[in-house]
Amino acid sequence: MSAEIICVGTELLLGDILNSNSQFLAQQLAKLGIPHYYQTVVGDNPERLKQVIEIAISRANILIFTGGLGPTPDDLTCETIADFFGAPLVEYPEIIEDIAQKFAQRGRVMTPTNRKQALIPQGAEVLPNPTGTAPGIIWQPRPEITIFTFPGVPSEMHRMWQETAVPFLQSQGWGKEIIYSRSLRFWGIGESALAEKVASYFNLPNPTVAPYAGKGEVRLRISAKATSEAAAEELIAPIEKQLKEIAGLDCYGADNDTLASVVGQLLRSAGETVSVAESCTGGGLGQMLTEISGSSDYFWGGVISYDNSAKVRMLGVKPEDLDKFGAVSGIVAEQMALGVKSRLETTWGLSITGIAGPGGGTETKPVGLVYIGLVGPNDELKSFEYRFGTMRDRWFIRHLSACTALDLLRRQLLTR
Amino acid sequence: MSAEIICVGTELLLGDILNSNSQFLAQQLAKLGIPHYYQTVVGDNPERLKQVIEIAISRANILIFTGGLGPTPDDLTCETIADFFGAPLVEYPEIIEDIAQKFAQRGRVMTPTNRKQALIPQGAEVLPNPTGTAPGIIWQPRPEITIFTFPGVPSEMHRMWQETAVPFLQSQGWGKEIIYSRSLRFWGIGESALAEKVASYFNLPNPTVAPYAGKGEVRLRISAKATSEAAAEELIAPIEKQLKEIAGLDCYGADNDTLASVVGQLLRSAGETVSVAESCTGGGLGQMLTEISGSSDYFWGGVISYDNSAKVRMLGVKPEDLDKFGAVSGIVAEQMALGVKSRLETTWGLSITGIAGPGGGTETKPVGLVYIGLVGPNDELKSFEYRFGTMRDRWFIRHLSACTALDLLRRQLLTR
Repeated sequence: MSAEIICVGTELLLGDILNSNSQFLAQQLAKLGIPHYYQTVVGDNPERLKQVIEIAISRANILIFTGGLGPTPDDLTCETIADFFGAPLVEYPEIIEDIAQKFAQRGRVMTPTNRKQALIPQGAEVLPNPTGTAPGIIWQPRPEITIFTFPGVPSEMHRMWQETAVPFLQSQGWGKEIIYSRSLRFWGIGESALAEKVASYFNLPNPTVAPYAGKGEVRLRISAKATSEAAAEELIAPIEKQLKEIAGLDCYGADNDTLASVVGQLLRSAGETVSVAESCTGGGLGQMLTEISGSSDYFWGGVISYDNSAKVRMLGVKPEDLDKFGAVSGIVAEQMALGVKSRLETTWGLSITGIAGPGGGTETKPVGLVYIGLVGPNDELKSFEYRFGTMRDRWFIRHLSACTALDLLRRQLLTR
Repeated sequence: MSAEIICVGTELLLGDILNSNSQFLAQQLAKLGIPHYYQTVVGDNPERLKQVIEIAISRANILIFTGGLGPTPDDLTCETIADFFGAPLVEYPEIIEDIAQKFAQRGRVMTPTNRKQALIPQGAEVLPNPTGTAPGIIWQPRPEITIFTFPGVPSEMHRMWQETAVPFLQSQGWGKEIIYSRSLRFWGIGESALAEKVASYFNLPNPTVAPYAGKGEVRLRISAKATSEAAAEELIAPIEKQLKEIAGLDCYGADNDTLASVVGQLLRSAGETVSVAESCTGGGLGQMLTEISGSSDYFWGGVISYDNSAKVRMLGVKPEDLDKFGAVSGIVAEQMALGVKSRLETTWGLSITGIAGPGGGTETKPVGLVYIGLVGPNDELKSFEYRFGTMRDRWFIRHLSACTALDLLRRQLLTR
């Protein structure tokens, strides 16, 4: 028994979009212990899609399709699969009603083309789509073949997978031997430096430990093969503990933790609050903090002081210091942090001012130069200088700036 | 003649990495006008890789492999291909020398396992790797089949593609007919509604027109086959013009335009400025505006008024209106917009207040309820109510809120 992932969409063949659905499904199959040896991408073309199905059923039993379930004429996945297995399409009135309701909720009227999305192969089960209009199917057109279809929109697909496909696969006996992983997340240490510290762990048989790097952070994935999540946890726990001890403060969390969520937990448990003053990140730090639902308990707001006039008017930065030291300086970062803290009366004030590029750099103040200001309960002003490098792009410098600011506050909260 | 992309690597089957190589190669093939109908992913397994080659040569002439060229025992791509076509492997002393030099440059000594990377199928041409140790090959094992191999490391692959594969393919006559695309981008209209308006264009032979949707926006891709970019532009231009006329204000731009970049261009050409006041988006609107380098010309900053106290202190929102109408109301949105505009003395003030969820919704004010406030040069206050639906996640509601705010300002700038 094995699965094959088949992603349908001419946009994939043109390179218009990145195939993140394959990665998600691959991870999910591993988690359930379902072997999977092939992934295929094919365009919105019925003849080629049929050839792909022919090949897939010769080497896999579970076929997972994404894409091509939309309302437009080039969306052909469902009808092509039905045609391949010789099943007629049946219109489901309850799907039409569901689609009409979703349109109504958004104050729109359903168009006739959407009726197409209510056509399901005879004998298939509807895989409901709670957020979008395109339902999927679970279908056994032959006793040995199980077919899943999902829309190509990742958020819709993820939810449908978790809510319907996983319970179905578990009911079929999958998930008895699982691969279960924990990702430890690190900030403030590079991949090779961390790898050297924990090198001896990379040869473990079960759980295995492997490093990954991306977007400025490093992860260590601890993966255990076991008969249950609890048994896997038991294998993972001692290794996790040892790795955390070796890494110390550089390990900020695991799995779905983010720097913002970890800072939020620390602030909440201390009964403290934070406000932000942002220049080069333009709101990105506030956005990260407010990605967490319930962040209003500890995040009170901030000032986006993009222009110098905003720094003076909204934060009380001294014009003479702007003239003397420039907007990108430690002293201005400190005044920004103090200004927002005192105006919003929070426990902490956190600020960022820097040069995100690609323009605006000079010899003494190159692109990538960033100052982070921090002021806490005792009103002691601190600022930190970073040089994120002139070769990194604007997005990355802004991302590193906001993450580093959060990490600074995290370390401050943990070590005071 | 067509190409197939074959990515080799168990890490892809485990979902450890995102398959960005497929996207890069797909874009590159489109640029050269090389048709390409299938992409396959297979693990580091010789038997399965041979089956994949068998299928690929039955439906394509150009096989492009990435991955599996490393020095470790699980890197089997090159020898498996050689074995499939019955060619012996030949050791190239100049490759060994090149690898040894690269190790020396990094102050390391070449390990014996790296010798493996110098084995090339007899008759194949070496595709040099300027930055890494793994060279690729260009090989015609049969007159009608051309094989390329590349390492899986994206940066190495990109450079080898550009420097060696592209000139080779051009010397074979490719790149004379190219596929060139323009993506028109829409906000404020759904995929099916737009598709109905422009349905007659979906049957055009050249250029073709196809819709796709994601993250709240719809695109129409116009793709032309032609002998040059200029010739493709000529085919695209009249269709682009007609589609824009049909769509009117709903079409906000093309290709790399974003709502923020379009708003920025309009503000810059009018010599006007904007400031923002954000509640539920927490800085996301400011972040979008400042993604554009040079946005300091027209974006002066803003206030993240997440807590009600910030709305009162930093924006002058009336406490009695907060009590009477609630923070999520049209009147508060208007006061936020006016507050930030007057404090920062900008031409426009733009505000967002809403319930991003998943918590915080009530029967009368459900998750997804968002008010956007706008005030312009004549100080006329406007607010707009949106119901983005209770089923969408926090990220998406915040994204829709920020994009819709930018779109409102865009429409205002275009129609005043």
